[in-house]
Amino acid sequence: MRNLNPDLAATLSPPVMEARQWVEGVSFPPDRPLLNLSQAAPADPPPVALRQALADIVLRDASAHLYGPVLGIPELRARVASDWSRAYGGRIAPDQVAITSGCNQAFTAAIATLAVRGDNVILPAPWYFNHRMWLDMQGIGIRVLETGPDLLPNAEAAAALVDDRTRAIVLVSPNNPGGVEYPAETLSAFRDLARSRGLALIVDETYRDFDSRTAMPGGHSAPHDLFADPDWDDTLIQLYSFSKAYRLTGHRVGAICASPARLAQVEKWLDTVTICPNGLGQRAALWGMENLSDWLAGERAEILARRAAMEQGFASLPQWQVLGCGAYFAYVAHPFALESDAVARRLVRKASLLLLPGTMFGPTRAEGGSGRAEATLRIAYANADLAGIATLFDRLARVTYRGL
Amino acid sequence: MRNLNPDLAATLSPPVMEARQWVEGVSFPPDRPLLNLSQAAPADPPPVALRQALADIVLRDASAHLYGPVLGIPELRARVASDWSRAYGGRIAPDQVAITSGCNQAFTAAIATLAVRGDNVILPAPWYFNHRMWLDMQGIGIRVLETGPDLLPNAEAAAALVDDRTRAIVLVSPNNPGGVEYPAETLSAFRDLARSRGLALIVDETYRDFDSRTAMPGGHSAPHDLFADPDWDDTLIQLYSFSKAYRLTGHRVGAICASPARLAQVEKWLDTVTICPNGLGQRAALWGMENLSDWLAGERAEILARRAAMEQGFASLPQWQVLGCGAYFAYVAHPFALESDAVARRLVRKASLLLLPGTMFGPTRAEGGSGRAEATLRIAYANADLAGIATLFDRLARVTYRGL
Repeated sequence: MRNLNPDLAATLSPPVMEARQWVEGVSFPPDRPLLNLSQAAPADPPPVALRQALADIVLRDASAHLYGPVLGIPELRARVASDWSRAYGGRIAPDQVAITSGCNQAFTAAIATLAVRGDNVILPAPWYFNHRMWLDMQGIGIRVLETGPDLLPNAEAAAALVDDRTRAIVLVSPNNPGGVEYPAETLSAFRDLARSRGLALIVDETYRDFDSRTAMPGGHSAPHDLFADPDWDDTLIQLYSFSKAYRLTGHRVGAICASPARLAQVEKWLDTVTICPNGLGQRAALWGMENLSDWLAGERAEILARRAAMEQGFASLPQWQVLGCGAYFAYVAHPFALESDAVARRLVRKASLLLLPGTMFGPTRAEGGSGRAEATLRIAYANADLAGIATLFDRLARVTYRGL
Repeated sequence: MRNLNPDLAATLSPPVMEARQWVEGVSFPPDRPLLNLSQAAPADPPPVALRQALADIVLRDASAHLYGPVLGIPELRARVASDWSRAYGGRIAPDQVAITSGCNQAFTAAIATLAVRGDNVILPAPWYFNHRMWLDMQGIGIRVLETGPDLLPNAEAAAALVDDRTRAIVLVSPNNPGGVEYPAETLSAFRDLARSRGLALIVDETYRDFDSRTAMPGGHSAPHDLFADPDWDDTLIQLYSFSKAYRLTGHRVGAICASPARLAQVEKWLDTVTICPNGLGQRAALWGMENLSDWLAGERAEILARRAAMEQGFASLPQWQVLGCGAYFAYVAHPFALESDAVARRLVRKASLLLLPGTMFGPTRAEGGSGRAEATLRIAYANADLAGIATLFDRLARVTYRGL
């Protein structure tokens, strides 16, 4: 095709879509149907009460169908501000909150305020692939921050990567794909680094509600104290998704907390890209925050039970090594003398399992990686109930002992 | 603020938002309330039947709440393909259609496949301000194509603007802000130019359903024959919005027709920015296409009646000159010895009218413009019923004869 943006053309295709192609046309044995643990997405719709409330809004609230404010409806911004302030023990004002069309858009908007083609951003490896794709598309360089065997990034190591074109450090906690929950000290060390070097610290907390250390938004203890810093907004940009907590993946609602001055820039970006977040999704998210705290606590308990089942399962499969387990993910080293891409493809045919290879989360050896990407798989266990996790381990045990 | 993308910082704020600030805190006389003709947006929600259908989907269709395909649900893509094929007398296949989170996003996605910072795009003046904002944000240059007194762009004049960094020509027909309907020959001349120079021709048809020459999607005669060309997708990228036809502005649903190869690039972009269009908006648009043809014909008749009332009104105010009147807009030269920005601000206080000045649609004199931007106003008459339009002319007559 003529006339093509070379940065976009060079960007890899979305991994989840590529993996879906691996299962197309494959006929799975009736007694061994496909177990799809590739995507971090609830398989069930939001609870009936939310759907009933939303149907009522569809019928009665005319404004929900029409343009709204670019940065989101005031009620939702105010609710996020007050819930966050309580939960994190800090002060977040409504004008420090913007609503976006999902958390991916929050990331793109945040980066848009910071960097242009030729600038660079520090990303710990393995990374969330959509973050990498966006940076590639924009011609923004990635400075890869390798993590240790515990998948935790180190602020001192990051300091060595900063140059005069570095604009931000991006962290995801609890981590996708790694499943690890970053200690509060790790986050504050990165904040201090970012502040001292004039960088933004972007923290994506999409999986916050399933952190094992806290029970947000009940607000026992926060996963970090970044918001307790009264000057947080000179450095921190926090991203959040309503998709996981209330099973609203198809509604596209996320949030971004940052300084009002930065949100004024975000507003220009969002106005131009989508004009406003959709009205129904915003109202569904607000209804969820107002009414589903107990339900969400139950969801969290269920995810933590699945996590425990994952840890227990791998304890009985010592050939596999768990690098991280949390959020919706286990990130594991496989025992096969094959690269992870081949392992993932064979698991589809030999075990009716769809997992994503570490190569999708980079960096591959060809990209200068250590080889860990080729040795690892991400398992999005949140998609499976406890019976599904038992099935997973039956199948993993079989291929472990009989080979792929 | 430190650490700011200079291209984004230099981008103007959204004009609709700026204009809204002009009316904040102003108290209007009880007998002369504000008449807001600034934004191209229906003031009423979608018809009750659509809302009832959507409420039913909210309750019964689990998949509507969950992630869907990046390029939109297959049913909607197929419906657009078959309706467009019939209406335009051409062949548009489902894999040449993608659904987006509104038509602005369709534009950003199209540009993302074409151009990077330092490239340029040809834009007739006056332009749709969000197009200009997006190009500014991306560091993509605008080559301004001045139009004549009829607001029609000329392909020969455009040819002289093409250089080796030009990637696309962008046309909006029926035009925002100009209100003019581009003749089919104008569009095919631009197609020929674009094809011969290896450029993309982007045609934004957001207001297509209100074109006075056609009665789409009933399909009498198409507003152009671009799709009748069997090779249309080597050059044409068509954009559409479901917001106006079915009053779905708050749902954020648009469409883009292009080659499958280009849509594969669009898919990477959309996956990274929003993952997928929201599920309810897509189903609302589909239901509208399936059930609201007659209703839409009535909407069109109403808009055309308002347009006739606008033309009639200005016929009795010869001090004003109508440059274009169609779509949702009249684009008019005012009779005051003031720049349009000052006129628009005074109209708020003196006549309780909110109109947008031509300076928001560029180019201003400071940007090398001819002075037309300072002499003109855009009136989004679709927001007013016939009584409202009568009120508009009462007030315009008063300020015309008594002064501002």
